[in-house]
Amino acid sequence: MTISIEELQLAARNHGMPLEALRYPVTPIGLHYLLIHFDVPEPSPDWRLEVAGSVSRPLSLSLDDLRSRPYVRMPVTMECAGNGRARLEPHVVSQPWLAEAVGTGEWGGTPLRGLLEEVEPLEEAVEVVFSGLDRGIDGDVEQAYERSLPLADALGGDALLAYELNGEPLPRQHGFPLRLVVPGWYGMASVKWLARIEISERPFEGYQQTHAYRLRRDEDDEGVPLDRIHPRALMIPPGIPEFLSRRRIVDAGEHVLEGRAWSGFGPVASVEVSFDGGASWRPAELEPPAGRWAWVGWRVGWRAEPGEHELSCRARDEAGNEQPLEPTWNVGGYVNNAVQRIPVTVR
Amino acid sequence: MTISIEELQLAARNHGMPLEALRYPVTPIGLHYLLIHFDVPEPSPDWRLEVAGSVSRPLSLSLDDLRSRPYVRMPVTMECAGNGRARLEPHVVSQPWLAEAVGTGEWGGTPLRGLLEEVEPLEEAVEVVFSGLDRGIDGDVEQAYERSLPLADALGGDALLAYELNGEPLPRQHGFPLRLVVPGWYGMASVKWLARIEISERPFEGYQQTHAYRLRRDEDDEGVPLDRIHPRALMIPPGIPEFLSRRRIVDAGEHVLEGRAWSGFGPVASVEVSFDGGASWRPAELEPPAGRWAWVGWRVGWRAEPGEHELSCRARDEAGNEQPLEPTWNVGGYVNNAVQRIPVTVR
Repeated sequence: MTISIEELQLAARNHGMPLEALRYPVTPIGLHYLLIHFDVPEPSPDWRLEVAGSVSRPLSLSLDDLRSRPYVRMPVTMECAGNGRARLEPHVVSQPWLAEAVGTGEWGGTPLRGLLEEVEPLEEAVEVVFSGLDRGIDGDVEQAYERSLPLADALGGDALLAYELNGEPLPRQHGFPLRLVVPGWYGMASVKWLARIEISERPFEGYQQTHAYRLRRDEDDEGVPLDRIHPRALMIPPGIPEFLSRRRIVDAGEHVLEGRAWSGFGPVASVEVSFDGGASWRPAELEPPAGRWAWVGWRVGWRAEPGEHELSCRARDEAGNEQPLEPTWNVGGYVNNAVQRIPVTVR
Repeated sequence: MTISIEELQLAARNHGMPLEALRYPVTPIGLHYLLIHFDVPEPSPDWRLEVAGSVSRPLSLSLDDLRSRPYVRMPVTMECAGNGRARLEPHVVSQPWLAEAVGTGEWGGTPLRGLLEEVEPLEEAVEVVFSGLDRGIDGDVEQAYERSLPLADALGGDALLAYELNGEPLPRQHGFPLRLVVPGWYGMASVKWLARIEISERPFEGYQQTHAYRLRRDEDDEGVPLDRIHPRALMIPPGIPEFLSRRRIVDAGEHVLEGRAWSGFGPVASVEVSFDGGASWRPAELEPPAGRWAWVGWRVGWRAEPGEHELSCRARDEAGNEQPLEPTWNVGGYVNNAVQRIPVTVR
């Protein structure tokens, strides 16, 4: 498997979370994953959020206006829909994530729901379109980054208009001054550098909605849109690394393996760990979750015997979704939540 | 040019600065480049800095002890010695930087010099060895990350023991609770997660000093150690990007091109910009520097005519060093400061 210079250009600007950062229940600023489609834009000093379209009472809000609204702060685990893409064969050319496109932020802001209720969507309204300030060309189409939510999801869920991360003003690379956070959905829904919310009477047909972010078996498959995050467990790689290969070296003896697991479909029901390359599985102990939309910590004891081993872990959620042992290829290289495999040398 | 999965593993965990972030005189936390040799370690709650070796008065200092010492805050531009490595041919296998391994932090802490004077190095002392908490295997040798400075450089320069970045406590990924910052030197000198400072009577022979970070023409060349940062200018890529290729699309008309330039050998004397692939060069206007060790901003007007263009920029410092047009290959893939080239489509 090799990576082209175009993919390296993306890997060099988009940030993964080094997996040892799984030790933090809330990912420190600067370690959370980042996928920036175009460029980080520079918002105007007189930035406002426009809320318009099929509504009775359009709104134009400054950041101070938003700050004076009801405040919610909650931990949300966010993951890129392309996480795991670089492990697919045949190779899919785009941002080449291995497994590190994840993070949990303490997002602070005002609930989307209250703001939508205040503008009073008309009877005909069906979707809510979110437009960012970031602009570029994708699939030969010039565009601002835009995504929609069905009105029912926008009104019914816990979506947040966030102006804080981990108690700090939203960092520029995470969408300053304002971003959408859609808990439980892949990151593509959580539009950054939010400039406009348009309530629409028709399904949105923008590029990022109808072309990108669809699960398609082949080029002829229209596919289904991505939404919720499929379950995944990841392990803090034990021991110490070799610099170049990242192979792990572990001392023989008793260890506690730790990691985190999440799903957008429901609470994590179980995490199982294998010490023998998937031949047998043992249940891990789960921590209480820090919130409905946050990953849960897990741990399991391991007696490491000298030799070569492969460690892996897999999560199942309460909706019955379980991580597969092998990936399923798809055109866009999305949703590869096949179990993590960590080769380890015990000495 | 292709990149292996081992290199992708490094690119996915080490962070580059997206080049549009050149617009910020001080790089926001989370956008500064990061090169982490091993894993981000977790310091013990009772962490202390030990200062020992060939000294009259060894010291053991808590973070509070360090905070009560004289305080300095200064902007320092830091760059990885491997920046530009991925552009070298034949290919050098290591962290595959293109051009983005740079950032400027407002580092706050206490001067190294004062602390060294206080421990009173003995007559025989020649070097100062800095040991981090991060541990792993490199070149078949298990090691903590360690680097030394000649005692004269440690006493004579502006090196800082930093516990703040941009007015915040040092982020974990930048070396919490304490790191060395050696202004003007490539980043390898600025040891993170500092645990121990040992004043030594012999030249240090650790792996990162005597094997890594040397400029070697071929495998038989003993080479010379890297220290100061060679000059480089980078440009904020103009216009808007195409997502996958990162090709820039610019509207025809008058533009102001902007960027930053730096050198560890002395102040930046000039930046020149070419709009025609290096056939002709025009001087850019320089901003006053924000500090002795910080990059300087530059700008130049450009009348963009429709068609395909290649923009580039090059810096010269007051010590007479100038960026080359083409890289010089070396074994470790270091110090590739050949001029940046940005293909642009003007429409």
